[in-house]
Amino acid sequence: MEETSTLQIHPSTIIETDDIGENTTIGPFSHIEKNVHIGRNCFIGEGCHIQEGVHISDGTHLENGVYIWRGVYLSEDVFVGPQAVFINYRNPRAYSHPPRREEILQTKVGRGASIGANSTILCGHIIGAYAVVGAGSTLTHSVRAHEIVYGNPARHQGWACECGEALYDIRECVECGRSYEMIDTGLRLHE
Amino acid sequence: MEETSTLQIHPSTIIETDDIGENTTIGPFSHIEKNVHIGRNCFIGEGCHIQEGVHISDGTHLENGVYIWRGVYLSEDVFVGPQAVFINYRNPRAYSHPPRREEILQTKVGRGASIGANSTILCGHIIGAYAVVGAGSTLTHSVRAHEIVYGNPARHQGWACECGEALYDIRECVECGRSYEMIDTGLRLHE
Amino acid sequence: MEETSTLQIHPSTIIETDDIGENTTIGPFSHIEKNVHIGRNCFIGEGCHIQEGVHISDGTHLENGVYIWRGVYLSEDVFVGPQAVFINYRNPRAYSHPPRREEILQTKVGRGASIGANSTILCGHIIGAYAVVGAGSTLTHSVRAHEIVYGNPARHQGWACECGEALYDIRECVECGRSYEMIDTGLRLHE
Repeated sequence: MEETSTLQIHPSTIIETDDIGENTTIGPFSHIEKNVHIGRNCFIGEGCHIQEGVHISDGTHLENGVYIWRGVYLSEDVFVGPQAVFINYRNPRAYSHPPRREEILQTKVGRGASIGANSTILCGHIIGAYAVVGAGSTLTHSVRAHEIVYGNPARHQGWACECGEALYDIRECVECGRSYEMIDTGLRLHE
Repeated sequence: MEETSTLQIHPSTIIETDDIGENTTIGPFSHIEKNVHIGRNCFIGEGCHIQEGVHISDGTHLENGVYIWRGVYLSEDVFVGPQAVFINYRNPRAYSHPPRREEILQTKVGRGASIGANSTILCGHIIGAYAVVGAGSTLTHSVRAHEIVYGNPARHQGWACECGEALYDIRECVECGRSYEMIDTGLRLHE
Repeated sequence: MEETSTLQIHPSTIIETDDIGENTTIGPFSHIEKNVHIGRNCFIGEGCHIQEGVHISDGTHLENGVYIWRGVYLSEDVFVGPQAVFINYRNPRAYSHPPRREEILQTKVGRGASIGANSTILCGHIIGAYAVVGAGSTLTHSVRAHEIVYGNPARHQGWACECGEALYDIRECVECGRSYEMIDTGLRLHE
């Protein structure tokens, strides 16, 4: 690993931006296009590809083989498992590629959410803060804050604590003791 | 990107054929084996692998992380989404690999068809012209021309226009106005 | 391909171990970390990643885009299809990565088993000898010896012979003639 202050980037990786924060690591065989912003304390694995113009927030963790296209917004501290796949427009045809800018449908992933390994995330939806999309799922709709979904298509399966544990009772996490209340958009932490 | 007339190939990519058409782009970290034909106006993304002897037709679009094995035939203008996976023989065992030539089951993908991101295409089937396999699907049977299938296993979900839009009425596409009639093998365009 | 006695490793591949057996092939754009053992007669495809400390048994076959994490044990002659994805801990969060050692849940894959292309293998389970996980599956539980499972979630679908063929009658494989009896943990070969 080549070391530039606290930034570690493998020499096989193609970096076309210089807007990368401190204490970020990028694995081999990855490609970061120009006009990409990558925040501090990020981890980007092997064989990843970040498309031109994308903003990667602080503390984001992308496992191996993750591609982030224009129109995908990852908030702070998002975890994306290995080979999870995002999409950024519907009805692809070889002869209408690349999509026109107005055809791109945005995917917004809230702070602290986790996207499971090898899941497929259709575009145009919101994944709430601290939500969990289970491994191997195909996500076809929006997900509320702290909601757990999985399956193909992914369906509601329960609620997750900020610590990652499933909540048997939203009033107290058995693992960390955090307490939640139900609101329209999912769960909200009791401060 | 290194530029050879209108052919653009990233220098990290391993190219063992010289039979690549004009105006074709191949991304980094890909591997094109010998005796491969790649047509004109193709796009081959990052981390792709085209196995020896494969024929890639004009206008084919392969997104990142797509592997095309012997026995997979892609017609003109096929779109293959990121990390969609083809297979070319059944019942793999480590101790019977590589497969004998007669064990390879062919997959034929018709003109203009779209294979969704992260889908899994079992072998021995035909995907009709302009068919759509939805993202995250596992395809276990053949698909008719213009048919939309998705799910695990993928099932019939509707019909797609050549323009990509789902058809609410096969007599007129709300997006482009094309008209179709139903035949045994799917839809046929009214000229 | 660079040739070192009977070991073939592509020069783009990053090799940090020297504990690799004879007659093993490793494709381009792969990464083998330090303290990894790779046995004899193995095949490791393109874009693979073997994490520090992992033991790969003799005769293992990993297709393109397979990542083997700490906690995943592959016995002899295991086949892993392209872009099949393993996991090694539950409830990932970006801010609790890497997992603590005690959080890693082991996955053990028995001798001769086959893991289908693009399947997702959740952690903490045992895949029995000669078992088959079908392509595109999401595996959420343990699998018995010679058992065939597939789907999302993967469910029991039948029994597989050592030769790979599905068994219509466990008393005699129509392909190779092997005979089995049912025991608690799956099928056992009649010697």
